[in-house]
Amino acid sequence: MNPIITAFEQSPDRGRGLARDMPVRWALEEVGQPYDVRLLSFSAMKEAAHLALQPFGQIPTYQDGGLTLFESGAIVLHIAERHAGLLPEDANARARAIAWMFAAKSTMEPPIVELGMAMIFERDKDWYAARLPMLQDRVRDRLGQLSRRLGEADWLDGAFSAGDLVMVMVLHRLSGTGLLEEYPSISAYIARAKARPAFQRAFEAQLAVFKAASAG
Amino acid sequence: MNPIITAFEQSPDRGRGLARDMPVRWALEEVGQPYDVRLLSFSAMKEAAHLALQPFGQIPTYQDGGLTLFESGAIVLHIAERHAGLLPEDANARARAIAWMFAAKSTMEPPIVELGMAMIFERDKDWYAARLPMLQDRVRDRLGQLSRRLGEADWLDGAFSAGDLVMVMVLHRLSGTGLLEEYPSISAYIARAKARPAFQRAFEAQLAVFKAASAG
Repeated sequence: MNPIITAFEQSPDRGRGLARDMPVRWALEEVGQPYDVRLLSFSAMKEAAHLALQPFGQIPTYQDGGLTLFESGAIVLHIAERHAGLLPEDANARARAIAWMFAAKSTMEPPIVELGMAMIFERDKDWYAARLPMLQDRVRDRLGQLSRRLGEADWLDGAFSAGDLVMVMVLHRLSGTGLLEEYPSISAYIARAKARPAFQRAFEAQLAVFKAASAG
Repeated sequence: MNPIITAFEQSPDRGRGLARDMPVRWALEEVGQPYDVRLLSFSAMKEAAHLALQPFGQIPTYQDGGLTLFESGAIVLHIAERHAGLLPEDANARARAIAWMFAAKSTMEPPIVELGMAMIFERDKDWYAARLPMLQDRVRDRLGQLSRRLGEADWLDGAFSAGDLVMVMVLHRLSGTGLLEEYPSISAYIARAKARPAFQRAFEAQLAVFKAASAG
């Protein structure tokens, strides 16, 4: 039995890979674990059956035998702990890779999501133009700090890890904002990650769901 | 040698326990691990010596022998993995407790911090009154979902775990906003956690830093 993940039946981002099933798909591809996907409509996500698995009414969930998990970061960590390839063997390096997962979700992602939410929900408000530079600068602060830490390295701490995977998925949310282009080393870091065959397989898989829904 | 954490020399919240050393102190108290604290001024946090430990110029860091970690969530997880008392023995229950840690930091905290930032930095702006209900409602959505999942239970998933610890620290940021009072089961959950002797020892320890700085 393969693990089963949930994903959007109708991709809200037209298959751009912003939905949180994408990091889980990528992690599963990196470790070579086949998986099945159960697609959910927006209404099904708010029903009791799904809320029993995911209390916030979101995707993805991850079911494997008797285990049900939610939160993409937690699912990626679970996969990384149970298969070789996404966490270092050395205990200290392993703890540091996990710290980068938390840094991606707790420190990098919030200002990026805040900017994205404003761009979607407040674009027509009087205050949008006044607030936008503040939101962009909060993201720039983080990108600058990340860029200085990354330096000339290929990955955040030694070999590619689940920390890089989650960080790149968070940074991917900035595609199209123009902000990534201000940080060439970060742009190169993202490109390096997206060149990985596992990323490409995962991206194609989520895109195929959008294409099938559009054709249907 | 005890592990060493960093904390603010001058508490920005006047010892209300909102700084991110608080969850780390609490976790260390829960598992009975003594620790040392190195206090940092705001300017020292932005210097190269600290940025080498914490690329975003924040506190806390955690140093133990050859290991340096940052991100409070990652530090709490590291402590929980190396001592009994903060994660269940059962592998599936353990993965679920870690999922609650990610849920606290990735799903609950961002709208709470966004509300808090607006209350600090945008209170005098023309748009503050117009945006405030939207920000409050985003937090209410999450509190309602959390409250429904918690139900009549004492803790999020079985016994008290690192997932509850991190969740309660996130919810603690809402103290004084009036929002927690709308969800009696969540208020009771927080009170239950704060009654734990380990929480109280940790809270007093961070408050003592503020009191010493105020007296000095």
